[in-house]
Amino acid sequence: MANLDSVLGCLDLNLDRSVERLSALLRIPSISTDPDYREQCRLAAEFLVGDLSAIGFTASVRETPGHPMVVAHHEGPENAPHVLFYGHYDVQPVDPVSEWKTGPFEPVVESRLDGTRKIVARGSADDKGQLMTFIEACRAFKAETGGLPCRVTIFLEGEEESGSPSLNPFLDANREELSADVALVCDTNMWDRETPAISTGLRGLVGEEVILRAASRDLHSGYYGGAAQNPIHVLSKILAEMRDETGRITIPGFYDDVSEVPDDVKKSWQGLDFSAESFLGDVGLSIPAGEKGRSVLEQTWSRPTAEVNGISGGYTGKGFKTVIAAEAMAKVSFRLVFDQDPDKIRAAFRKFVEDRLPEDCEVEFHPHGGSGAIQLPFDSPLLQKARQALSDEWPKPAVMIGMGGSIPVVGEFKSRLGMESLLIGFGLGDDAIHSPNEKYEMTSFHKGQRSWARVMAAIGEG
Amino acid sequence: MANLDSVLGCLDLNLDRSVERLSALLRIPSISTDPDYREQCRLAAEFLVGDLSAIGFTASVRETPGHPMVVAHHEGPENAPHVLFYGHYDVQPVDPVSEWKTGPFEPVVESRLDGTRKIVARGSADDKGQLMTFIEACRAFKAETGGLPCRVTIFLEGEEESGSPSLNPFLDANREELSADVALVCDTNMWDRETPAISTGLRGLVGEEVILRAASRDLHSGYYGGAAQNPIHVLSKILAEMRDETGRITIPGFYDDVSEVPDDVKKSWQGLDFSAESFLGDVGLSIPAGEKGRSVLEQTWSRPTAEVNGISGGYTGKGFKTVIAAEAMAKVSFRLVFDQDPDKIRAAFRKFVEDRLPEDCEVEFHPHGGSGAIQLPFDSPLLQKARQALSDEWPKPAVMIGMGGSIPVVGEFKSRLGMESLLIGFGLGDDAIHSPNEKYEMTSFHKGQRSWARVMAAIGEG
Repeated sequence: MANLDSVLGCLDLNLDRSVERLSALLRIPSISTDPDYREQCRLAAEFLVGDLSAIGFTASVRETPGHPMVVAHHEGPENAPHVLFYGHYDVQPVDPVSEWKTGPFEPVVESRLDGTRKIVARGSADDKGQLMTFIEACRAFKAETGGLPCRVTIFLEGEEESGSPSLNPFLDANREELSADVALVCDTNMWDRETPAISTGLRGLVGEEVILRAASRDLHSGYYGGAAQNPIHVLSKILAEMRDETGRITIPGFYDDVSEVPDDVKKSWQGLDFSAESFLGDVGLSIPAGEKGRSVLEQTWSRPTAEVNGISGGYTGKGFKTVIAAEAMAKVSFRLVFDQDPDKIRAAFRKFVEDRLPEDCEVEFHPHGGSGAIQLPFDSPLLQKARQALSDEWPKPAVMIGMGGSIPVVGEFKSRLGMESLLIGFGLGDDAIHSPNEKYEMTSFHKGQRSWARVMAAIGEG
Repeated sequence: MANLDSVLGCLDLNLDRSVERLSALLRIPSISTDPDYREQCRLAAEFLVGDLSAIGFTASVRETPGHPMVVAHHEGPENAPHVLFYGHYDVQPVDPVSEWKTGPFEPVVESRLDGTRKIVARGSADDKGQLMTFIEACRAFKAETGGLPCRVTIFLEGEEESGSPSLNPFLDANREELSADVALVCDTNMWDRETPAISTGLRGLVGEEVILRAASRDLHSGYYGGAAQNPIHVLSKILAEMRDETGRITIPGFYDDVSEVPDDVKKSWQGLDFSAESFLGDVGLSIPAGEKGRSVLEQTWSRPTAEVNGISGGYTGKGFKTVIAAEAMAKVSFRLVFDQDPDKIRAAFRKFVEDRLPEDCEVEFHPHGGSGAIQLPFDSPLLQKARQALSDEWPKPAVMIGMGGSIPVVGEFKSRLGMESLLIGFGLGDDAIHSPNEKYEMTSFHKGQRSWARVMAAIGEG
């Protein structure tokens, strides 16, 4: 622990210098969706390779058909675990630029009257500031101890904000090089200012487009109305039947592979400072619409959903057209939890629709992606170590939370590299990522570095 | 009846000349939707005024903000009923012109090997050929008897194919002049080649746009899915609940003012040469989707409907977007029969929706038109006279049929002028109105003239 203390002290002493390094990275406008910034993306990758090489990593810019990846390796003690750290160096566009109070690529440190500070720039929180917390922790370890407490591979992507088109081929082509004991993914938020969080569950996703067809052409609702099958009616009815009065999904077998969250975890969620009223109130709602008898955190973290994301059919323009449409379409998605199998859920949904199809209707299905949920075993030793390390650093103990959405890279790490991920990040809800005046709290940057030092030390202890 | 026989004989002798007169009218390209043909519309109106004046009508071109109307008056015997004849001199555009075998405005009489003939030109059936059947009957009456058997007003519109924007103001401004004992509307079809038809029922129409709103903005289905209300789900459920398993509409009070068609009429419908299989089969369907236990003719002629004409919400473009929409929209229409009141039905539907609205949803309604059904009393004396007159002319007795759609002018005659309409026309289902190579059967034209002579004589008998 003497080592760790000196590493933490080094981080405290060098905070200003670490801000300067981050600022240099923030000045590079690496907007990945905009082809005009192609060269700037490469510059950011090269900057990071330079910085990592200076620390002592074997680092290189790796070409892809899109923006390059950064891959860097550093040895650890014999038999120490091997971690892969993931972040991304690309950023979102800055529109509307007129709403920025300072230049999006001219980072400033703004001081508040209460003594806190924030780093304002595009990418400060998402994800340059976050990825630098880990690099600074490595730098301090090297400076104080001459090495790292575990074997480390750093993998930084340049296309996270533009759909990651090169990610999967790159993972497949470099499977051996990138496979580690665990991935540390730093692109998420704390629970609140005082409470660090590890996301242990990410819901999976199955998307399905359904097209129902009845008549061979659009019909006049005067001549045919009352006799002709209307596919909008059929579709509405099937979609309505998909959930019962208690909010449960009625598709047979849908809940077969859904487990319950352990009681102690459920209890820790109840203890969280979470207000369903303000979560829903912020978007103009007041009543949880999901399964009755479940808290909002359960509904969004640990329960599956069936959601109609889009529907269309017939005439939808201005005015009115008395038409009976030949077809109607819905885009339906399922958020999956625990062991729900995307293929099984897709098949069950298709059967549900087909079983309800009137004789005069035809159905066509188009699959749109499918990925299972990520659920870290709650008793995983690495998870417990990281949890303790974070609890040591922050005012409140770390919580294990779920995430309603998907983080594709985590699924790909699991399916392509067989690797679990610990999602640990120091962003806050008001960081305004993807918006004007994005900021990263100085406490996030500083204590984030210290957190990684603690996590690495804990993992390295073996 | 001696008079009628000579009138009929006169029509037989002058058929070729009547075809020449019709051809002259067909040569005028009076396409009302296309501003380039504005002058041609006026020419058609002036042609008709000239022809009617030549017969002995007091006829004039009447200005409107759009295309002019033609109004012509002729006295009848003292105490004879006053009829208003309605037709329209404007025609549909001719696209795609390359599919016409002869010029759309170069009428030709084509002979078939079985001896039958057809008049081919845009407007031959819709509606120039039809309106000329009545004018020719008047001409023959004047030639043979020096007068008409009843008082006649002829009212010809020039905007029927372009939404009739000037019709209502014109009816209102000339209410007294245009009010008659009954309107004779000649813009419909026979039941089949041998069976004349009088449309005695036209369904009414109420249109309503429903917009449901839940959250104040579109939500990410990962973060909010399972907790947030999805207006597409709510809308689908409400629309699905609008009909029960037997196809009945479940809106309370919906059937309150719906009568049953008299048994004898229902029986006459059963006797019609109508195949539900081919009616539905022609558009790729096979099973009547309306109320169980009702024939297709009942379903489309004498039963009301609730039809979703359009629905939209969320993401409906290519690919997939995992969004929970802030709003969803449906366009719903109701075909009304008998005494169903548009305002009452609209209110009942709105209440049906509001009663099912979750607390977190708001609804907005936009009315789109509303008109009651037209239902001639089956025992009306004028109807019975016309029915007998048509039965005398054609191989098979006239049938009283319903029409699923609406003919706006009939509703306006009723609501603005307090006048019922007899819808009698001689078109056939294969006339290709609104399509290339429109035709009108020579038998339709010839026996149509004779039919009107008989109907006028019957009405004039008092």
